[in-house]
Amino acid sequence: NIAGLDNRTLYEQVRKRKIHHMNKKVYLDYASTTPTDPQILQEMLPYFRSEYGNPSSMHTSGRQAKTVIEGARKRIAECINANPDEIIFTGSGTESDNMAIKGIARANKSKGNHIIVSSVEHKAVLESAKQLEKEGFEISILPTDKFGMINIDECLRLIKKETILISVMYANNEIGTIEPIKELAEAIKKHKDERNKTKNLMTDDFPLFHTDACQAGGYLSLDVKELGIDLMTLNSSKVYGPKGIGLLYKKSGIKISPIIAGGEQEKGLRAGTENIALVFGFGRALQNAQKTRTIESEKLRKLQKYFIKKLKEKIPSIMLNGHAEHRLPNNVHISIPTVEGESMILMLDKIGISASTGSACSTFDLKPSHVLIAIKQNEEIIHGSIRFTFGKHTTKKELDCVLKEFPPIVKKLSKMSAIRK
Amino acid sequence: NIAGLDNRTLYEQVRKRKIHHMNKKVYLDYASTTPTDPQILQEMLPYFRSEYGNPSSMHTSGRQAKTVIEGARKRIAECINANPDEIIFTGSGTESDNMAIKGIARANKSKGNHIIVSSVEHKAVLESAKQLEKEGFEISILPTDKFGMINIDECLRLIKKETILISVMYANNEIGTIEPIKELAEAIKKHKDERNKTKNLMTDDFPLFHTDACQAGGYLSLDVKELGIDLMTLNSSKVYGPKGIGLLYKKSGIKISPIIAGGEQEKGLRAGTENIALVFGFGRALQNAQKTRTIESEKLRKLQKYFIKKLKEKIPSIMLNGHAEHRLPNNVHISIPTVEGESMILMLDKIGISASTGSACSTFDLKPSHVLIAIKQNEEIIHGSIRFTFGKHTTKKELDCVLKEFPPIVKKLSKMSAIRK
Repeated sequence: NIAGLDNRTLYEQVRKRKIHHMNKKVYLDYASTTPTDPQILQEMLPYFRSEYGNPSSMHTSGRQAKTVIEGARKRIAECINANPDEIIFTGSGTESDNMAIKGIARANKSKGNHIIVSSVEHKAVLESAKQLEKEGFEISILPTDKFGMINIDECLRLIKKETILISVMYANNEIGTIEPIKELAEAIKKHKDERNKTKNLMTDDFPLFHTDACQAGGYLSLDVKELGIDLMTLNSSKVYGPKGIGLLYKKSGIKISPIIAGGEQEKGLRAGTENIALVFGFGRALQNAQKTRTIESEKLRKLQKYFIKKLKEKIPSIMLNGHAEHRLPNNVHISIPTVEGESMILMLDKIGISASTGSACSTFDLKPSHVLIAIKQNEEIIHGSIRFTFGKHTTKKELDCVLKEFPPIVKKLSKMSAIRK
Repeated sequence: NIAGLDNRTLYEQVRKRKIHHMNKKVYLDYASTTPTDPQILQEMLPYFRSEYGNPSSMHTSGRQAKTVIEGARKRIAECINANPDEIIFTGSGTESDNMAIKGIARANKSKGNHIIVSSVEHKAVLESAKQLEKEGFEISILPTDKFGMINIDECLRLIKKETILISVMYANNEIGTIEPIKELAEAIKKHKDERNKTKNLMTDDFPLFHTDACQAGGYLSLDVKELGIDLMTLNSSKVYGPKGIGLLYKKSGIKISPIIAGGEQEKGLRAGTENIALVFGFGRALQNAQKTRTIESEKLRKLQKYFIKKLKEKIPSIMLNGHAEHRLPNNVHISIPTVEGESMILMLDKIGISASTGSACSTFDLKPSHVLIAIKQNEEIIHGSIRFTFGKHTTKKELDCVLKEFPPIVKKLSKMSAIRK
């Protein structure tokens, strides 16, 4: 019996060790996507099964669905200090970016054909701008410094009388740099006021200012009045809501063209049957995210500092990309010369640790990151980069696991790389 | 005790009666939207909670997500007899229609600037065509007869050398008329072959042919090769799949411009993180719908015949809109002169019966249905129309309930209308 117990104890120990080292996944790719909050998912289920009406229908089931949609709209409006009718639900952050850039440009081209976007924007903004170039718009790219930070004066210098839109993201998805959105908005406003005064243009509201805030939802204030912005992109799958839903905040009175035309949904600005379950889930998720953002930020900031410090101790050659202070609390993006990012990711993946090269959206085309090119990193460093992004389930224990497993991987890959050369 | 039992029996009887007459809803608006199949919803849940990776990520969680997406793509390709790489997932049927019309036009404008769309198309097609008009395209509207049926020769007569696209829907969402898609595709092909032979144009594939098949998924064959089409729109929420997901079938080799730009998802044709749960649910739902379509059609055809026959007996003044034979088995769209459609719907709704005016997408703008205008119904009849659409949970008992409750409502409303005049 004693032998039996011993065996069982041994078995338990092995099993626990196995779970810890092998089976328990360490997910550090929250900037790519977050799981849906189980409580919110639970609350979403009735809208798939029993309360499934089309919000445009006249009957009770349709009207109830409409009430759910409008409830979520109100909830989100409160989170971002906007009016409910300034919220346009879309299918993703990408769609919202497309709508902001192309929708504003096409609706206001009589006012001018010039647009400014930063060099570190998400591809959704950059590719939309490229499409507009083919339609006769002129695009200026606002560069950043080596930390990925834009310069406000440089932005103002790019403004011409034809400039109708400026788009600078709130926080970068790859390197985590937080841009000075509030200060930029103030500077643009001052610039407009002065110009309008000189030229007696009382009602010229251009250029408008759009910010892609997809990565900011869980950590930064989204108060659109305080930020002073005209348009803001948000999505659900970065704040523990379901995938497949995003929104565009558009200040009242601004003209925009729909990119998806058809029915009269979203005041004719985004046609297609509204997805009640996803809209509801998004509303709840954003509310949670904004409610807990200060506590979450503090917690993750500590983990971030600890992780960076320990990494530097263990791998002295690493370089932190992005800004040292003005960065998201959940982002650690590093480069290691002589080591390939993809190899690090695949070897970490083998032992159950999920990390990313930075831009999940362009993983498979194997093109180097446009953000790292924009901040003028050299090629070796660009190819040797890896991004760890934390979330609400991240623990110090998980990071310790990475700190234990990651350095030997880097060592091994460095050796292989040296042999090849 | 006997008295006690009796009371309970009585209570039970009253309760059952109440459920039947008051609490049990009769949902006859399946063409607006269907509930998500509970079994499919169950299978979708893990993709929200635990298997939530971004399909563009390199790690296992991302690769697993990609496998799920590609599995659904393959499943759907089999349903419609296409190659998996001919399926582009979108956010809705509306988005797919927009992509088909605007994406084809913009990508191929060097080939011509003329597009033909039928007068009874969904608003997503008609509004997309309107947007293109502003971009310099010329739109011809193909009329229909009074049953909503297009004429193939009339369509061929509209074709010019600049025609790049023809869009005719498979089955109408309001009046249920099934268009002769296969025959039209054959006629267009013959027309192209003859023209190409005459002009020695070996490789001119234009005009392309798109069909919106959103209402057809549960009842008609979607075999794209048999139908002979180049592009086809489908969505999930009409076939007991989740809302918020659709697709565009695009035959290999056809050039199209994305309407949502950004990352490299869907081969760069539709950017934005793929929604694994919804894509998976759509794949399963379409597979089910195509598997059961013959049996479902037979069942609903019988109910449809019964319902129309009984309705005519009870309300002799009703007129059936749409085609008597070439119509979807789940659609009964009628007009009753002197009675307002909206009033009928609201009174039916009060006793728990959900019906529709026809086009849920324009319920709130209160504009008369463009389809009824297109089939040249007079105004009184247009305003006196109501649509009942059946689905897999519809029973004869439910229809009997409507046949009992609906005639007195019509009678009451007719009287009120007569007094007003």
